[in-house]
Amino acid sequence: MNKKLLLLPGDGIGPEIIAEVRKLIGWINEHTDLTIDTEEDYFGGAAIDQYGVPLRDETLEVARKSDAILMGAVGGPKWDNVDYSIRPEAGLLKIRKQLDLFANLRPAIVFDALIDASSLKPEIVKGLDILIVRELTGGVYFGEPRGIEDLGNGERRGVNTQVYTTSEIRRVGKVAFEIAQKRQGKVTSCEKANVMESGKLWREEITRLHGESYSDVTLEHMYADNAAMQLCRRPSQFDVIVTDNLFGDILSDEAAMLTGSLGMLPSAALGAPGSPGLYEPVHGSAPDIAGQGIANPLATILSFAMLLKYSLDSVELGDKIEAAVQSVLAEGLRTADIMVEGCKKVSTVEMGDAVIAALKA
Amino acid sequence: MNKKLLLLPGDGIGPEIIAEVRKLIGWINEHTDLTIDTEEDYFGGAAIDQYGVPLRDETLEVARKSDAILMGAVGGPKWDNVDYSIRPEAGLLKIRKQLDLFANLRPAIVFDALIDASSLKPEIVKGLDILIVRELTGGVYFGEPRGIEDLGNGERRGVNTQVYTTSEIRRVGKVAFEIAQKRQGKVTSCEKANVMESGKLWREEITRLHGESYSDVTLEHMYADNAAMQLCRRPSQFDVIVTDNLFGDILSDEAAMLTGSLGMLPSAALGAPGSPGLYEPVHGSAPDIAGQGIANPLATILSFAMLLKYSLDSVELGDKIEAAVQSVLAEGLRTADIMVEGCKKVSTVEMGDAVIAALKA
Ligand SMILES: [Mg+2]
Ligand SMILES: [Mg+2]
Repeated sequence: MNKKLLLLPGDGIGPEIIAEVRKLIGWINEHTDLTIDTEEDYFGGAAIDQYGVPLRDETLEVARKSDAILMGAVGGPKWDNVDYSIRPEAGLLKIRKQLDLFANLRPAIVFDALIDASSLKPEIVKGLDILIVRELTGGVYFGEPRGIEDLGNGERRGVNTQVYTTSEIRRVGKVAFEIAQKRQGKVTSCEKANVMESGKLWREEITRLHGESYSDVTLEHMYADNAAMQLCRRPSQFDVIVTDNLFGDILSDEAAMLTGSLGMLPSAALGAPGSPGLYEPVHGSAPDIAGQGIANPLATILSFAMLLKYSLDSVELGDKIEAAVQSVLAEGLRTADIMVEGCKKVSTVEMGDAVIAALKA
Repeated sequence: MNKKLLLLPGDGIGPEIIAEVRKLIGWINEHTDLTIDTEEDYFGGAAIDQYGVPLRDETLEVARKSDAILMGAVGGPKWDNVDYSIRPEAGLLKIRKQLDLFANLRPAIVFDALIDASSLKPEIVKGLDILIVRELTGGVYFGEPRGIEDLGNGERRGVNTQVYTTSEIRRVGKVAFEIAQKRQGKVTSCEKANVMESGKLWREEITRLHGESYSDVTLEHMYADNAAMQLCRRPSQFDVIVTDNLFGDILSDEAAMLTGSLGMLPSAALGAPGSPGLYEPVHGSAPDIAGQGIANPLATILSFAMLLKYSLDSVELGDKIEAAVQSVLAEGLRTADIMVEGCKKVSTVEMGDAVIAALKA
């Protein structure tokens, strides 16, 4: 089976961490039935330097024809003063919009070996494995009308519009239900239906979709403020959470912080079935440590494992890579960012090598 | 000094827990310069039974002429099927609206004696004392236009409007800055100014207000999603948080859950300076244990301590009551809801008596 993958290393530590995935791809091409053909291009600040824009149309065309895209990281102080419309982050917004990536997948996973990094008690977060599915292209961050209006009497008025349609809710709901079918089979849908009509519509449409096609999945509704509480109180009650852009922004970050290891977390943005998904680590480009060979490649490697599962139909291989990551952590290997006493500090390259060694084992 | 206080015990355990505050008032009237004259009325379900409405206009008139109002709790299964417009909770919404109580004060306090109740590690929450000031009458829960529209092609569209004006932001900002002056002198203002114009206006107006009148307070701005993370990671970095209705709804519940003891938390809703404030415990009416004499009166006693500080100008007395609560907890007294091995289980009345005994000590 041949698949096409576009690599966008980006800025800062991006190239170093993507290099470790390139090694993994080499191993996969040599040892499995899957063959991954890669292309690669500049993106973000690197693309500004090279082409004058953070994402050129040629890159976007390659992205469209790929099965998936893996990104490193974008941005850095070098491009802080470029025009707002061509700043590195604008490249990310553009690719999401152009590929219509409406479902953001944000796992919150606690690795046994890193359990002490959490600010929560070990017995509360042990084995934690939550997936938050956040609607990414609608809601109050995009709704019209919006703006700040001068009322003339020394008063101003700031307005944003929270808006969702049936089809926007259903398409992200489908993503959540179908992922839950491959996990623990439970979806918690979060909104504020008690005080917001957009939340009432969200609840009704998710309920209808569930009844039509996904009655094998357990569906639970929870107000978003209660979800913020429950994530803190007993996070293990959750499997998949599906929620809108605003609540998802907040709940996915809270859930990520439960793990205590932001530098370990992968993410994905998916569009319609069959269209290419975009995968990237949650952490940033860390310009302060770029080029030193000490960056942690595991969040990118885990993003690649998600990519194998969700975009390349290779669930088993994705699971295998996740198990390899668990195993190198259990052996006590740590990059500088997650180093604790009694473990062995390794470089970016050594960590990548260790994951491959664990795959072979 | 004579002050007028309206007591609204309400439903469920409300009358039992308010009775313990009545004892405290008796003690204050006898032993301090402050004299508190109380009136009392039915409210919520009890008022529906008595008057046919959850809040009658006569009660509201007495409330307007009082210095403060202390509520027990409202609601219960008995009134689940009454009309939406006269349900017990409608009385609460009405009194808030009629008294224009725009600032909701939600403390998150960890008592040393109850530190193990938190799902966070003791070293993370030890000594925690955060106050969240939430805007309560504006924003997306009240903005127009709102509703669900049928688009005719099988599609529906749900809309809510997030809207804030200069004066709405400034008045709640003032409350936060003035409280911070009496606490640790730090305000963290939370919004999503990066993606919402209403948040941009919020940040600009808070910054302007700070520069005009409160430069002795340290002001920090934080995106609401980052605040949700930071509450989990290192909550002790916060003193006062000021935020809008929606973000405040979520962050105040998350912060409350950090303490692990929801049954211990007081709250206040304040209006313009000089107008009466409304105080109530965060917990509900707990109809399942009503009338058994086992309810925990401490959240109501702590709400009364807030009332003394913020509405009756008696900061010292409020502090004294808070210290008395700390002391009975340190002695190991516990009502059933917070009982743990090695402590002494007491009734509602015994707990109230113990607080008064600690006041005398
Ligand atoms: Mg976020
Ligand atoms: Mg809430």
